[in-house]
Amino acid sequence: MQMLPDALRDMVTGIAPPAEDLRPQAQTKIDNKTKPLGALGKLEDLAVQMSVIQNDLNPELKRKALFVFAGDHGIAEEGVSAFPAEVTGQMVSNFLAGGAAINVICRHQGIDIRVVDMGVNADFDDHPVLLQKKVRKGTRNFAVQNAMTVAEAARALENGVAVFQEANRSRVIDIVGLGEMGIANTTSATAIICAVTGVSPFKATGRGTGVDDKGLEHKAKVIQKALDFHNPDPADGFDILQRLGGYEIGGIAGAVLAAANQGTGVVLDGVISTAAGLIAYLINPDIRGYLIAGHRSVEISQTAALEHMQLEPVIDFGMRLGEGTGAAMTIDVVDASCRIMREMASFDEAEVSQQN
Amino acid sequence: MQMLPDALRDMVTGIAPPAEDLRPQAQTKIDNKTKPLGALGKLEDLAVQMSVIQNDLNPELKRKALFVFAGDHGIAEEGVSAFPAEVTGQMVSNFLAGGAAINVICRHQGIDIRVVDMGVNADFDDHPVLLQKKVRKGTRNFAVQNAMTVAEAARALENGVAVFQEANRSRVIDIVGLGEMGIANTTSATAIICAVTGVSPFKATGRGTGVDDKGLEHKAKVIQKALDFHNPDPADGFDILQRLGGYEIGGIAGAVLAAANQGTGVVLDGVISTAAGLIAYLINPDIRGYLIAGHRSVEISQTAALEHMQLEPVIDFGMRLGEGTGAAMTIDVVDASCRIMREMASFDEAEVSQQN
Repeated sequence: MQMLPDALRDMVTGIAPPAEDLRPQAQTKIDNKTKPLGALGKLEDLAVQMSVIQNDLNPELKRKALFVFAGDHGIAEEGVSAFPAEVTGQMVSNFLAGGAAINVICRHQGIDIRVVDMGVNADFDDHPVLLQKKVRKGTRNFAVQNAMTVAEAARALENGVAVFQEANRSRVIDIVGLGEMGIANTTSATAIICAVTGVSPFKATGRGTGVDDKGLEHKAKVIQKALDFHNPDPADGFDILQRLGGYEIGGIAGAVLAAANQGTGVVLDGVISTAAGLIAYLINPDIRGYLIAGHRSVEISQTAALEHMQLEPVIDFGMRLGEGTGAAMTIDVVDASCRIMREMASFDEAEVSQQN
Repeated sequence: MQMLPDALRDMVTGIAPPAEDLRPQAQTKIDNKTKPLGALGKLEDLAVQMSVIQNDLNPELKRKALFVFAGDHGIAEEGVSAFPAEVTGQMVSNFLAGGAAINVICRHQGIDIRVVDMGVNADFDDHPVLLQKKVRKGTRNFAVQNAMTVAEAARALENGVAVFQEANRSRVIDIVGLGEMGIANTTSATAIICAVTGVSPFKATGRGTGVDDKGLEHKAKVIQKALDFHNPDPADGFDILQRLGGYEIGGIAGAVLAAANQGTGVVLDGVISTAAGLIAYLINPDIRGYLIAGHRSVEISQTAALEHMQLEPVIDFGMRLGEGTGAAMTIDVVDASCRIMREMASFDEAEVSQQN
């Protein structure tokens, strides 16, 4: 924490856990709805969690927002991705044109989408959907040096905080999904998760955008070598970000912290978004109650990160795209859960007999 | 099949499998979207399936419909449910008032809901949401006799067919979810599934609305005794319906057959809806390509039925409510998949570089 600039440190220490004292009332309310106890499964858990987060027995998602943080990675030089590095910038253009999977899903679910350039190795004209927050045109190669300087790591967090705060100021955000784009960023995310949880890269490395068996072995070796080189303190989120992270990962971590500070529910996406959530969690574990694990990624290391934070994902569609696609699909499930809490009749209201 | 009335037999023999010859083109279209191969997991499978079902590379769900078929069960006399039998009728009133979980989810997802009285032991005034298709005020107790007569079983199927056809005639249905309500109907559904798949009731019986350990053992014994008494032919769907079924199960089976006949995608719900799908599958296996297994129910026997039809459920939220709630949540996933197929850019369109 001592590395953090003053403004960021004040914001982080201002985070309070959600209103857990409302939980028993929220549980009673959902238990009295016209259904057997617990019969709506995860929808009930989400209804209770959102009641607690919003400190309101009638939780509501009036404004749903999603940010796609993008950045390039020096580690791409090591040949860890099946796609060339220029795809990061090309996909940002695709997001701005509305043609990517995340655009389609956000349109479908009524979610406001914004794309944040945190560190793409390309220049973009101004665009209503684009937030220009570039720290640098890509991180350094963390196989041989720190991915970023202390100042850049702080800047990445600050920019992520600003992205959430500015959007939230214009109109209050009730739930935020956090996705990303960055060729080679599953390598960075896996390194972060291995550093924090102690799980071996040879067990936890996944195929990312689709490397073959040889590529997978190479990727795991690159990560193990980097971990040996950096030997980071597993409890120091800021240091791990600086050594192994990406600017988009820092941006997401900042947005998580800012959302928690404002009492807003956060839906994480796949392995990169979850690694960023883990960085935020190390910086202040009081964010945990605001986190919803969107989906179970095909990427193996994500599970280690979720277990570290004791989170259980909502959906499991065998997805491994990132961009926030898993989070966006999950936001609708959370929305449905809130409506159930608000609109479903109780046994008394509906005059339905209870269990024998 | 010889038991079926002529009109029903003609409809059933008129079912053709979906346009499988479009599958390679649909697969190529989704493969060329701006994402790694297969990275959208189940969403891609659904996009391809809906293209095949609609025989259109731009599948679309303009009208989404859901029917809740309700009926009472003579087997409730055996004390197999945690709730009293009058809850079936009370819940139908709750559906008509819009206060049940299925109402909330259908409102949320933009799904037209209709409730079908197939055999509830209560009378209802006319209501715009209610379809009066009562065969009889509850089945007979299948522990000691056939649940219904041959004529009643045929009538249940015919009424289900009519429900779909009438609604589809007023405005074409692009996807239909099929749910149910009926105290004691997990007992009927589990008996059907055990009869067809050969799995033991002592392995496959679940807690339904929430019976305790003693109740669970009793329920399994009731089912085993009934199977010993009836010893049904595992390949004869109509006979199994007549011996072990419910009017709402027959109604759902009829609706599945009618939807397949019209080339409409069908989303099954939990164990009862899936047991009804299994009856329809035995009557004509060509329905299979139109079926989408909505969700993984907590009820164990559902898995045996899905495996018998080689179906994999889309969502797994730990739900066990029925009503069509799992199907309704899944319909939105199917909708999102269709939009991805229609709206997402290809690598060429977005000028994004492909895999190395």
